[in-house]
Amino acid sequence: MNYHFSNLMSRQSDSVEKLLKNTNDPAMIPFSGGNPAPEAFPVAELSALCGRIFAEQPVAALQYNYSSGYPALRDTVKRWVRERYGVGGGEDEVLITTGSQQGMLLTARALCDPGDVVLCEEFSFLGALNSFRSCGADTVGVAMEPDGMSIGDLERKLKAHPNARFLYTIPNFQNPTGVTLSAEKRREVYRLACRYGIVVLEDDPYGELRFQGEDLPPIKTLDEEGRVIYCGSFSKVVAPGLRVAYAVANRELVTRMSRDKAGDDVHTSALPQILCQRFLEETDFAAHLTSLKQVYRRKARLMMECLDREAVPSGISYLPIDGGMFLWCTLPEGADMLDYCDRLAAEAHVAVVPGSAFAADEGAPCRSFRVNFSTPADEDIVRGCEQLGAFTRTYLGR
Amino acid sequence: MNYHFSNLMSRQSDSVEKLLKNTNDPAMIPFSGGNPAPEAFPVAELSALCGRIFAEQPVAALQYNYSSGYPALRDTVKRWVRERYGVGGGEDEVLITTGSQQGMLLTARALCDPGDVVLCEEFSFLGALNSFRSCGADTVGVAMEPDGMSIGDLERKLKAHPNARFLYTIPNFQNPTGVTLSAEKRREVYRLACRYGIVVLEDDPYGELRFQGEDLPPIKTLDEEGRVIYCGSFSKVVAPGLRVAYAVANRELVTRMSRDKAGDDVHTSALPQILCQRFLEETDFAAHLTSLKQVYRRKARLMMECLDREAVPSGISYLPIDGGMFLWCTLPEGADMLDYCDRLAAEAHVAVVPGSAFAADEGAPCRSFRVNFSTPADEDIVRGCEQLGAFTRTYLGR
Repeated sequence: MNYHFSNLMSRQSDSVEKLLKNTNDPAMIPFSGGNPAPEAFPVAELSALCGRIFAEQPVAALQYNYSSGYPALRDTVKRWVRERYGVGGGEDEVLITTGSQQGMLLTARALCDPGDVVLCEEFSFLGALNSFRSCGADTVGVAMEPDGMSIGDLERKLKAHPNARFLYTIPNFQNPTGVTLSAEKRREVYRLACRYGIVVLEDDPYGELRFQGEDLPPIKTLDEEGRVIYCGSFSKVVAPGLRVAYAVANRELVTRMSRDKAGDDVHTSALPQILCQRFLEETDFAAHLTSLKQVYRRKARLMMECLDREAVPSGISYLPIDGGMFLWCTLPEGADMLDYCDRLAAEAHVAVVPGSAFAADEGAPCRSFRVNFSTPADEDIVRGCEQLGAFTRTYLGR
Repeated sequence: MNYHFSNLMSRQSDSVEKLLKNTNDPAMIPFSGGNPAPEAFPVAELSALCGRIFAEQPVAALQYNYSSGYPALRDTVKRWVRERYGVGGGEDEVLITTGSQQGMLLTARALCDPGDVVLCEEFSFLGALNSFRSCGADTVGVAMEPDGMSIGDLERKLKAHPNARFLYTIPNFQNPTGVTLSAEKRREVYRLACRYGIVVLEDDPYGELRFQGEDLPPIKTLDEEGRVIYCGSFSKVVAPGLRVAYAVANRELVTRMSRDKAGDDVHTSALPQILCQRFLEETDFAAHLTSLKQVYRRKARLMMECLDREAVPSGISYLPIDGGMFLWCTLPEGADMLDYCDRLAAEAHVAVVPGSAFAADEGAPCRSFRVNFSTPADEDIVRGCEQLGAFTRTYLGR
């Protein structure tokens, strides 16, 4: 039969599937992924905890639970974000979400009617952009600089779009650019959000993946009036397959979003929630994070060394990073980035993600592409960069 | 700050929270619940499988997975629904969802624009109604009869609402009425859906909880053109806390819904998916279902016996059932059902759900309430019915 699809459904593109179509080819070196490093998964600890959960609290793991989250996990997260980041006091509550992705959707559903605007970094996490668009919102980009979004451009966009409902930002090791929003700019972002009356959705999946430099306080630490929704996740610090994340926000927002979540998936799967709760409470989480950072430091430095040797001399530049999972590479002026990425995959068997996929303003010009170093094995990083370098020398004729 | 909530969010009611507010009182006998019987959870099998999963396939359980579902589970479900129900051939595909609740939301998002209509049984699953309404759809009820929805009324509603996008039905042991749609009416429902060009969303969480009588073929078995979305769930046959369910539908619908799901929670938690897959493949699922039916048969018969003895003589009637988890009780003409339910909780410490909570047409008159027998322990069924009976005798003055 011919289906009558909703207007929202008709807006959804198949760009993600197209992007990922190469990832099943075993000959392809996957610089296009966004998976955490599997060698950093705490398998033994999670396995032991699972056994204890089934022995000690099987009904909690298997019965229906609360839409706002497993109460002990909400408490643990509340304590953790307070001690670690200094957020979540006063009128704030914790909502457990099925991955941060669900936090994005619930925020957009709560705040946006079709035609409303969500301001985003000009290149941003594709899953979030898709989620906002699936609620009928238009995404508008704010220019990026090496220390995070341009404050001047943010104010221009706020003036130009009085129907902007919230600003979406990934302050640490942004996806896809790797850029970190400076402390000064965090204060400016908050000040402008107050002045123009919008909410800030602060998405911080990578904050614990800093391998050099000093942590910066979340924008949420400046929040005195429930303006900032802070999203954290267990995906990068424990395991993404569990799909456990959280939002810290004013209790009015949490109540609304929790009610909406009940109509989405009732609650986040209980066993993974208990696994995360007991992992934080019963293992040495600090030691786990330390070993995680070592893995990411090694892989990031290896990737940067290889790019410096193989690709930079051919004319590719990239933004240096202090953490996260991604590097943002840029081709010289005049280069056709989409053609480069297509042929890089077809001829050199290296998959990267064309930067245009991350454009908040669809169709914006872009000469950049994203590479990931957490998914490929170390030897694939080396080999992939060699193949990328050789291809680039020929492609750019240098 | 004062939040600017979306129009959809402003429509959401807090009726569910209000309904459940009594459930934390330990003195309250919980006939209001909808939880599967915890004594039927296969704890030992799931615990053993968890150990094997962490030993044999930890990365599959912990890494990102596919939005459409863990491939082996999709295959297992495809085989299961084919062999068990005779559905899912030809152009159909399987989508794994985070509980059937997500199947409801994805269907409504795919097919409904704000102001469109979803036809429902006149009293229906509150979570589904909320989910449809949260997409801006209006729910319109079709009159219920002891053998399922009235076909005459269905046709009247189809004529009256040309913007009806789909019919939502729970054909087996319907929530809240316990009614099963007869085989003849299933054929009529499908015929009318074809004639009026709408999709059928067939939600079958309780089909395996039949404790007497013969199984009836799903409406989906009649489907020759991808008109029926069949939703099944592991919530009642394995455990609801896992949040693993599935939709069987035409591949075009599955592709669209899977893309939309990627923007919701990326994918359903992987470990619970693998648990369900291996539970079906590696344990004696038929034997598990047999023991499950024994538990539900015992509890249902106990509840009906107690109601016959304690409540029916006072003027309460109920529809007999062949399976499921609920009984639909009706007060005599003239009784004020909401007042009865409030005072039953306050004075007799028995929580039931007022039937009006399930009304597809909000504000429709209702003298019925729902009682559940799967959540309370056997002794609470006996004691709760005694308390309900004593209260009713006084309340109705019989």
